[in-house]
Amino acid sequence: MFNKTHTKYIQSLHHKKFRDENSVFIAEGPKVVLELLDSREFICEQLFATDDWFRNNEKLLQKYSGMEQLVVKDFELEKISLLTTPNNVLAVFKKKAPAALHNFKGKITLVLDTIQDPGNLGTIIRTADWFGIENIVCSPACADMYSPKVVQSTMGSLARVNIFYTQLEEWLQQNSGIKKYAAALHGKNINSLKATKEAIIIIGNEGKGVSDAVMQLVDEKITIPKIGEAESLNAAVATGIILAAFC
Amino acid sequence: MFNKTHTKYIQSLHHKKFRDENSVFIAEGPKVVLELLDSREFICEQLFATDDWFRNNEKLLQKYSGMEQLVVKDFELEKISLLTTPNNVLAVFKKKAPAALHNFKGKITLVLDTIQDPGNLGTIIRTADWFGIENIVCSPACADMYSPKVVQSTMGSLARVNIFYTQLEEWLQQNSGIKKYAAALHGKNINSLKATKEAIIIIGNEGKGVSDAVMQLVDEKITIPKIGEAESLNAAVATGIILAAFC
Repeated sequence: MFNKTHTKYIQSLHHKKFRDENSVFIAEGPKVVLELLDSREFICEQLFATDDWFRNNEKLLQKYSGMEQLVVKDFELEKISLLTTPNNVLAVFKKKAPAALHNFKGKITLVLDTIQDPGNLGTIIRTADWFGIENIVCSPACADMYSPKVVQSTMGSLARVNIFYTQLEEWLQQNSGIKKYAAALHGKNINSLKATKEAIIIIGNEGKGVSDAVMQLVDEKITIPKIGEAESLNAAVATGIILAAFC
Repeated sequence: MFNKTHTKYIQSLHHKKFRDENSVFIAEGPKVVLELLDSREFICEQLFATDDWFRNNEKLLQKYSGMEQLVVKDFELEKISLLTTPNNVLAVFKKKAPAALHNFKGKITLVLDTIQDPGNLGTIIRTADWFGIENIVCSPACADMYSPKVVQSTMGSLARVNIFYTQLEEWLQQNSGIKKYAAALHGKNINSLKATKEAIIIIGNEGKGVSDAVMQLVDEKITIPKIGEAESLNAAVATGIILAAFC
């Protein structure tokens, strides 16, 4: 039965420190929870859901075993949820062991230099998944891929994209054979790029762009042509436009 | 001097009802506040900022007059701010009188059919501004353009894009001479579109896409080709990719 210990535990997982200690993360809402369950990439430890939701998904849930299933009332779900409108189900999943850095030849790899906003990171992961990007390499200062806001904005894509956290300078030097492009305010017009199968595309921080140290390792700066007056584009929107040009 | 009445008033403006009653809205942080001040599109009524901020911007503020200026302490700013990390300044601006619906000939106009998430709406306004889009037509069920989250995510572009709220079916029929495109899951590949100077581009709701009633008035469905597995793209990302193809 759902109790105060559960409440405290889930609330603690809103914070990175406790997610790291327990090596788990939370996901909310039918869409995200079912996509993660279905992917079999993440082991589900606990499922907190309303009575109705369990009843409506009884058959579906028979496919998955091993997780604790707890019925919660609406007011209880509200206590553990981070959503403005809690959405029937919240699950605790085991984190994956970080994938080993492997061969990035013959692929388009997305590199994120200090994307700090969790919503942006999640949306970028979802966008990468749409364009069939297998791997995203994040600088250590990027938002935590397991932060609840990241998980929610990936809309389930977390299960399909490999995400690595590593020092970018070192990693870029190790992959010196692959052409490296970085989003910048003054660079080559992305409309003059040809679709390609192998590239490293670097997106920089929301306010500061790509750091100087990383920019020194780049082969070509690329730019989304500006017609109007906005000072910049949102990082996830820019990523989408650039991936559309490359893919 | 800053007092409890101010706190109550600003907090009330977090809600649409009170923004409508007072015909004002709030903006936060140096970037957004200064862009709105500088645009002269919106009249500033009150400026709440830290002592430091007022001192650093003394010269700049001489350009603007008529607004009440109140020094707040950090803990007072926290009380009235909606940001996770309050950012030195919060301003109350008068709303603009809604622009009259005018001629959309010879222009690219963006139409939003029930974009409900304020962050998405704000990011779409910012993206439209980047691509030089003058006008956005919103269905009445779209998020409120003056909601604090919309204002923050526009990053100042609110001052440069005209935003109308109206019944879409009627408006689309009135503009029958302009070719209408709608984002859809199965339509013409956007890569086969040619850049154009006149078009109506319709983006649908985050979950449901463009409504049936609106879709019946569309000349061509358009689609961002999918390579990977994500079920859909974020609405703002999709808007960015489509505008990049059109502009």
